[in-house]
Amino acid sequence: MSEINIGMIGYAFMGKAHSNAWRQAPHFFPGTRTPRLKVICGRNRAAAEQAAGQLGWDEVETDWRKVIERKYIDVIDIVTPGDSHAEIAIAAAKAGKHVICEKPLGNTLAEARQMLDAVQKAGVRHMVLFNYRRVPAVTLAKKLIDDGRLGRIFHYRAQYLQDWIVDPEFPRVWRLDKSIAGSGALGDLGAHVTDLAHYLVGRVSKVMAMTDTLIKERPLPEDKSRTAPVTVDDCAIYMGKIGDATAAFEVSRLAPGRKNYCAWEINGSKGSLRFQFERMNELEFYDRTLPEELQGWNNIMVTDGSHPYVGNWWPAGHVLGYEHPFVHAVSDFINAIDHGTPIHPDFADGAATNAVLDAVEASANSGAWVNVEQIPPTQG
Amino acid sequence: MSEINIGMIGYAFMGKAHSNAWRQAPHFFPGTRTPRLKVICGRNRAAAEQAAGQLGWDEVETDWRKVIERKYIDVIDIVTPGDSHAEIAIAAAKAGKHVICEKPLGNTLAEARQMLDAVQKAGVRHMVLFNYRRVPAVTLAKKLIDDGRLGRIFHYRAQYLQDWIVDPEFPRVWRLDKSIAGSGALGDLGAHVTDLAHYLVGRVSKVMAMTDTLIKERPLPEDKSRTAPVTVDDCAIYMGKIGDATAAFEVSRLAPGRKNYCAWEINGSKGSLRFQFERMNELEFYDRTLPEELQGWNNIMVTDGSHPYVGNWWPAGHVLGYEHPFVHAVSDFINAIDHGTPIHPDFADGAATNAVLDAVEASANSGAWVNVEQIPPTQG
Amino acid sequence: MSEINIGMIGYAFMGKAHSNAWRQAPHFFPGTRTPRLKVICGRNRAAAEQAAGQLGWDEVETDWRKVIERKYIDVIDIVTPGDSHAEIAIAAAKAGKHVICEKPLGNTLAEARQMLDAVQKAGVRHMVLFNYRRVPAVTLAKKLIDDGRLGRIFHYRAQYLQDWIVDPEFPRVWRLDKSIAGSGALGDLGAHVTDLAHYLVGRVSKVMAMTDTLIKERPLPEDKSRTAPVTVDDCAIYMGKIGDATAAFEVSRLAPGRKNYCAWEINGSKGSLRFQFERMNELEFYDRTLPEELQGWNNIMVTDGSHPYVGNWWPAGHVLGYEHPFVHAVSDFINAIDHGTPIHPDFADGAATNAVLDAVEASANSGAWVNVEQIPPTQG
Amino acid sequence: MSEINIGMIGYAFMGKAHSNAWRQAPHFFPGTRTPRLKVICGRNRAAAEQAAGQLGWDEVETDWRKVIERKYIDVIDIVTPGDSHAEIAIAAAKAGKHVICEKPLGNTLAEARQMLDAVQKAGVRHMVLFNYRRVPAVTLAKKLIDDGRLGRIFHYRAQYLQDWIVDPEFPRVWRLDKSIAGSGALGDLGAHVTDLAHYLVGRVSKVMAMTDTLIKERPLPEDKSRTAPVTVDDCAIYMGKIGDATAAFEVSRLAPGRKNYCAWEINGSKGSLRFQFERMNELEFYDRTLPEELQGWNNIMVTDGSHPYVGNWWPAGHVLGYEHPFVHAVSDFINAIDHGTPIHPDFADGAATNAVLDAVEASANSGAWVNVEQIPPTQG
Repeated sequence: MSEINIGMIGYAFMGKAHSNAWRQAPHFFPGTRTPRLKVICGRNRAAAEQAAGQLGWDEVETDWRKVIERKYIDVIDIVTPGDSHAEIAIAAAKAGKHVICEKPLGNTLAEARQMLDAVQKAGVRHMVLFNYRRVPAVTLAKKLIDDGRLGRIFHYRAQYLQDWIVDPEFPRVWRLDKSIAGSGALGDLGAHVTDLAHYLVGRVSKVMAMTDTLIKERPLPEDKSRTAPVTVDDCAIYMGKIGDATAAFEVSRLAPGRKNYCAWEINGSKGSLRFQFERMNELEFYDRTLPEELQGWNNIMVTDGSHPYVGNWWPAGHVLGYEHPFVHAVSDFINAIDHGTPIHPDFADGAATNAVLDAVEASANSGAWVNVEQIPPTQG
Repeated sequence: MSEINIGMIGYAFMGKAHSNAWRQAPHFFPGTRTPRLKVICGRNRAAAEQAAGQLGWDEVETDWRKVIERKYIDVIDIVTPGDSHAEIAIAAAKAGKHVICEKPLGNTLAEARQMLDAVQKAGVRHMVLFNYRRVPAVTLAKKLIDDGRLGRIFHYRAQYLQDWIVDPEFPRVWRLDKSIAGSGALGDLGAHVTDLAHYLVGRVSKVMAMTDTLIKERPLPEDKSRTAPVTVDDCAIYMGKIGDATAAFEVSRLAPGRKNYCAWEINGSKGSLRFQFERMNELEFYDRTLPEELQGWNNIMVTDGSHPYVGNWWPAGHVLGYEHPFVHAVSDFINAIDHGTPIHPDFADGAATNAVLDAVEASANSGAWVNVEQIPPTQG
Repeated sequence: MSEINIGMIGYAFMGKAHSNAWRQAPHFFPGTRTPRLKVICGRNRAAAEQAAGQLGWDEVETDWRKVIERKYIDVIDIVTPGDSHAEIAIAAAKAGKHVICEKPLGNTLAEARQMLDAVQKAGVRHMVLFNYRRVPAVTLAKKLIDDGRLGRIFHYRAQYLQDWIVDPEFPRVWRLDKSIAGSGALGDLGAHVTDLAHYLVGRVSKVMAMTDTLIKERPLPEDKSRTAPVTVDDCAIYMGKIGDATAAFEVSRLAPGRKNYCAWEINGSKGSLRFQFERMNELEFYDRTLPEELQGWNNIMVTDGSHPYVGNWWPAGHVLGYEHPFVHAVSDFINAIDHGTPIHPDFADGAATNAVLDAVEASANSGAWVNVEQIPPTQG
Repeated sequence: MSEINIGMIGYAFMGKAHSNAWRQAPHFFPGTRTPRLKVICGRNRAAAEQAAGQLGWDEVETDWRKVIERKYIDVIDIVTPGDSHAEIAIAAAKAGKHVICEKPLGNTLAEARQMLDAVQKAGVRHMVLFNYRRVPAVTLAKKLIDDGRLGRIFHYRAQYLQDWIVDPEFPRVWRLDKSIAGSGALGDLGAHVTDLAHYLVGRVSKVMAMTDTLIKERPLPEDKSRTAPVTVDDCAIYMGKIGDATAAFEVSRLAPGRKNYCAWEINGSKGSLRFQFERMNELEFYDRTLPEELQGWNNIMVTDGSHPYVGNWWPAGHVLGYEHPFVHAVSDFINAIDHGTPIHPDFADGAATNAVLDAVEASANSGAWVNVEQIPPTQG
């Protein structure tokens, strides 16, 4: 089978997840072309070489521009911190490469708009890797909503809670530095549940928000005897409207016991759906159209052959884990390139999420409602 | 409204639960007659008087025979330990009283047969208070099975687990003395899950069993410096057949964390049902007739107005507790008396459970399969 | 035992729950005096008489002023819709009666302040019946927080969701009419989760809010061919601060599958607690002070003898239901009267919740942050 | 890094799971040698070649003897149906290959004994791939039990329930044919929960059992108009002793809604543990040594860095799936080969499980208790 050559910029947590996805895709979702893990790029050569060995890449590069310059690279996969997404993605698009970018697309809406503009002008394919869209339970939820099973939507509510910085001695790593990370829980976690709102229900039109940094100083990673201010939010709460439905969001990294609790619930006139990632193989559906005595929260284990993506893995009840949706995403992306079919979420969707994040920050600063700038979806 | 006069023999834990049921019935299930808590009977006058005051009884008696002799008593309610059930119930029946008896009906099948014979000859009404039949979730399960929603039944499995005697210093109370209690976990807990099997699926035809006493000596309640042997089982495991379905049972008082875990699951060709008492307001139903992508364990909160008994209590979601099924039972019993309608479980059902318990003990002793003596159900 | 005479104004859903509490209290929580269900009051004599019979009251009255005039009445228990709370409570206080009032205390903060002023001047005892404070799991949570087991509090979040008006054909009953009910989901459900925030964490200092009425017209109960506007909110979302902790609230009556889902979670530096009423016998506690490998959400079944209130009911695992916390409340109130001990939540607490509700409405109208008027707690 | 060459016999469901494990191991558990997926073997060349391509094997062979003959093969991995395990494993051992074998080790104890004898005589390393031992939650449970946290063990109970043959039209595939599969639910599912009993608590000493085939005829896979008898059990129920603890087992393929419900619970004097595979990232621990008011079922999400195997995968809360324990197993096996360290479960453990399965069948046939032949564990 012919190959499609991947160049990946970055190699940390997301680099590990994306590398696994590229390696696993052909074994479970054989498509038109087999991804080749061609070049991995990191500024620190020793670390990048170590990563290449463990993650399975052929070559190592320390300057991302040189990866883009390689003619034989088909896809640039960006897994760096948010402050370099825009520059890399725009250069890659100009060089005619297809681009996958980790979320959030930009650190600001302005950056995201430039990125969207670049890929549209270049005519390359583009995807933001909001991995939770391709958890089979979430994909099934989308199908049920599109089938009309919830009726008119009344409410979307989401929480994305973690606890990895509850200890005040946890150091001020780059994710807690606004100049690199852009924002804190908001950009990291809020981006996901905002994108899920857009995917499942529709675009957020306006927001009212608060953000907070409850632990204001932390030790420096390189010298624990000194501290530095935390310049991003620990938590954010925001509410808004999606059409005439209400939307409520809360994200935090200070919620003991919530490890990767990415949770949402949707209430409609005909029923409700709810999901939380820590039990990612389960989708709960309440169907008001059943006889009253039989109505309940139906816990669907989304591992049957008829469920999205699942048939390519294991038999029913043989549950999937965190990394599987990444495999679904890169597999879908290769197919989209090779068949010219639509792909989501693309940079327009990514920019739409950046628009919400910017509006949340503006509202948190002003204490007033803020209208969200609307980014039209790509016509599919 | 006219009254129906109750005489209750015994006043401990079950006396408290039954008294509450008699008091509450007219307020939530007003029927043809209002129960009057007329006489409570206990051998220790001081204790019985104290109970009468707190539980709401008009009069106190120390000799149960004198309660039965009272002309104006309509119903004898037996809540004593198992060793006195037979004598009291037979005398009550002979005196023309209707009889409610706590479970298990007898300490042996022979006793239970005599009791059944007595009430049948006397033509009085009779009920064994297996309270779990009237948990609304259980009553709903029965309806769904009768409606054919499970199809052909393949399996019944039940566990009734508690942990109140895990501590080896817990004293050797009367429930651990075979001469009074008849048996241990088997008669106390196994009686319930056997009766539920009979109610929901059908009569057990044969059994193979083991019982065990894992903590063999315990301090005497009255003198903790001395110990006495535990003469009843701590746990029992038995299996058998109900028609061509399999049945599996395990009961124990040595299961830390299981407080009152009375649980069963039924698997049939069209679906499954499961229940556990610690979440008594919930029934889980798996419906194989739904489209595959929607099949799941449907957690029905059995608190809607359309569910059995519930409409008389509170709005949906305003959950019931342990004592409510006792109210349902005595209310149904009064109506059965006043309208001549069938009532279950009656002494024939109680004897059927005693037949299983006897067979379990015989099998545990012999190490071989034992056929269960069949007690025909009352024609309703 | 001597008696304490109760006069109850109103007889609908809450009248049924309070009557049950008065009847049950002496049987499970015998105190200094036994409550006597002396007079029940309703404007419609026939309905009131029917209620008196079923709920167990001695006498019937149609004018609440006449109940207050009766010298032998010790306690006035107000279970009417919110628009009459103030007038009745103030009159009762002036007559020297102790007062229990259903929640919310007033339909406005101004009313609640007048009520508080009246009971303080009269020197009578007063309580608002926020029943959820005395769910044993909630009372235990309060104890654990007071013991310092959560450390510094970061977040309080609460949802109170129901689904009884999802059907657009559900009629416009009095609870949907602002002139009687004061507000909708906000006053009915938001009042509870606000009071629980105050009880468990502390007073809300400022809020930002939105409310919505998603189904704007409904049939009239008395003539389904005509409709009338719904003049209260269907749902409300609000956020705010409690000290330096964040607080997030969402309440709705349009959430299919959520029957009486009164839920909260608290995150602190040492751990977290969470609760939801539909599983009211369970409290979940995450303890960060355990070794990491053992940290988890500990599901405590709050039915052990060492848990609050539980020892007076049934053995471990024999779960309680909706009405039990009402019994705890009236029992505590009688003891407070007879022993002069503190009682909570009192009218100061009730007014504090009204202050939040008023601020929520003001913020929903203005689209801006609103400071909550602070009502000092009673010195205990 | 140097390589270790694998030859795999078989390529169906288990072949897919094992291939994935060999591929993934070096990326997540880099050890002394990297496994090389050298030869895959299947009788049907076209199918084997297709599998080689998709699963990532270098070469294809149609005769397993030729794989064993290859000098450069270090490890033979047997994933064929049970009837060929013995012959292949014995030949591989004689050729000096290390051997991994799918469970159950043999179709009979006699076969398993011969296999154990062969590997012991050859001095090669051997493992039976009971994958559930290396689910992190199960490995943690083993550690907690070894640490003494359960105290004296009272009870082990296990259920392994599936539903894939509930439909009577499901064809009579090879797993339903005794001549190939050896037994049905017993050998397939009972083998797992028996091995888990041995791993977690100790060896089963005697059993009493029933087995049943509830659907006795099924269509032939190759011609649905004809049927053939099902010659294996659909379900098995057995009980026994492990030391002085009781053990209860139930396995079935006729339990709608139970997809891959491999569940066990262990009760001891100090606490309890429970697990079920469909929520494989969770272990529940009840700790009786906590203060009573804090005792509960502690749901430990076994995804923290301090938990077994987990640190090599993803951050906390980023859950694992079905295939991960296979990766742990083959990684541990390579390390055992290269460092001479002990490995479990080995063929002695595999034979011990076969001994239980044989005893279960004997008891089901005789209706009497059967002592289990004891296979001594390998001295580690």
